[in-house]
Amino acid sequence: MTLDAVSEYLTGLQARIVAALEQLDGGTFRRDAWTRPEGGGGISRLIEDGALFERGGVNYSRVQGASLPPSATAARPQLGGLAYEAMGVSLVLHPRNPYCPTVHMNVRCFAAGDLWWFGGGMDLTPYYGFEEDARHFHGACKAALAPFGAERYPRYKKWCDEYFFLKHRNEPRGIGGIFFDDLSEPDFESCFALMRAVGDRFINAYAPIVERRRALAYGEREREFQAYRRGRYVEFNLVYDRGTLFGLQSGGRTEAILMSLPPCVKWRYDWKPAPGTPEARLYSDFLVPRNWADGG
Amino acid sequence: MTLDAVSEYLTGLQARIVAALEQLDGGTFRRDAWTRPEGGGGISRLIEDGALFERGGVNYSRVQGASLPPSATAARPQLGGLAYEAMGVSLVLHPRNPYCPTVHMNVRCFAAGDLWWFGGGMDLTPYYGFEEDARHFHGACKAALAPFGAERYPRYKKWCDEYFFLKHRNEPRGIGGIFFDDLSEPDFESCFALMRAVGDRFINAYAPIVERRRALAYGEREREFQAYRRGRYVEFNLVYDRGTLFGLQSGGRTEAILMSLPPCVKWRYDWKPAPGTPEARLYSDFLVPRNWADGG
Repeated sequence: MTLDAVSEYLTGLQARIVAALEQLDGGTFRRDAWTRPEGGGGISRLIEDGALFERGGVNYSRVQGASLPPSATAARPQLGGLAYEAMGVSLVLHPRNPYCPTVHMNVRCFAAGDLWWFGGGMDLTPYYGFEEDARHFHGACKAALAPFGAERYPRYKKWCDEYFFLKHRNEPRGIGGIFFDDLSEPDFESCFALMRAVGDRFINAYAPIVERRRALAYGEREREFQAYRRGRYVEFNLVYDRGTLFGLQSGGRTEAILMSLPPCVKWRYDWKPAPGTPEARLYSDFLVPRNWADGG
Repeated sequence: MTLDAVSEYLTGLQARIVAALEQLDGGTFRRDAWTRPEGGGGISRLIEDGALFERGGVNYSRVQGASLPPSATAARPQLGGLAYEAMGVSLVLHPRNPYCPTVHMNVRCFAAGDLWWFGGGMDLTPYYGFEEDARHFHGACKAALAPFGAERYPRYKKWCDEYFFLKHRNEPRGIGGIFFDDLSEPDFESCFALMRAVGDRFINAYAPIVERRRALAYGEREREFQAYRRGRYVEFNLVYDRGTLFGLQSGGRTEAILMSLPPCVKWRYDWKPAPGTPEARLYSDFLVPRNWADGG
């Protein structure tokens, strides 16, 4: 295995994604490079108040640590405490237009002791659902994984549904996508190739959706619902998300990690959408498990 | 020990506090009673869009469970897994006027196996600091604890500073107050009396502060800073707060628990107040450990 090859891929991926997003938005992503006293560092690329993106970040980091936090591996907690190296690209984009969904993508590689493993995935969080968009996003996820066996997509789709789930709300975060972790079979090159397939597919999975929805007119009602639903995003990321907790626990750069949080969020006691509204349809038709890649 | 006496005190305390807050606000707190399939339930009293309080809740709950979550006790993790009973009053109030501070108070009693213990405290989170207010609040905390020994206030004040601390920001949540947990010495009656002293003092500690500040004029600048700082409140409550995590882990009522979250919150990348502004003074003069009860 060559971790340098992985980090080279990751920095290239970050640059390609940012370039594509800048073209979509018309604005420029700020660039903040940082180092970490314990070892390593990263490059944060961020946008706020863009024409398309109200707030978003595409982070690259490669860090070394003396003691792996437990949040870093789901399947092998016994590795907690070992010296480790971790690298990845992680992005969250919050468009201003409530008809454009929020998106998250992450690809990562860990090494601890003699072991290494890959993880990653991408998932979509719409405020107003469109079946065409859900089918497109999941179709792209399925296509990315197809070269690695037909069983990958359904397995990683299910994993995503289970992972991005707010237990205290009994509610999925969004319409899912794919998620995988602890990937180390059959060999380093195959796993690295799978991670690249996911990273390389991101723009194709997301850009057509925002291009279709960005010109839709919206008003205060849609912005209010977006702000309310963004609260769920905050709850998930701060209570459950292992990537966020790993970052905070491992002394990552707080401002870069918390770029995943939306720009403006509202909480409202026991609020529920009126039956028959587009807001109610998000819950009834989209925040439920569906086989989007097979037509939904 | 008689847990019924504690719950009777707690329901009375909730009623007294809500009555005082309704008088302050001029509006009415909504009342939601709930039960829990695993045993017990609670009464939530809530306000949104009040004249004074933009959002706030005063919750009472008494619940029984088959297995104590680890978040319930700091000092005795070995009790995790035991059957338990827990009761408490917990409140958070978010005034609309940024010159009025957010406040939190909690008093609670746990029993598991043959053991019981009390916990609680109150703490203040200003957006714009006033030394007079900080001295008043800490003075009230000190006065509440004075009958239980002169060493209590400094000990519980320090505990509060340590507990309400955002490690990932290296920043206290606010100006503190008092916090205690696992209190079971010297005997049940004394501990219960201490808990009552804290609960009974709350209105006296908080009401004079909002009465002094509620008429101060503010504009968009102050509201923006308030929304930004409220983000820290969310980060603390969802990442660190054991009360919140206990509620979510023990199958409490999510909407009641998350009444602690502010109504409207903003995140902004790497934002810092300009030197010399009132916003900068919050950080330099208030979000630092000070002996407020002894004149600051």
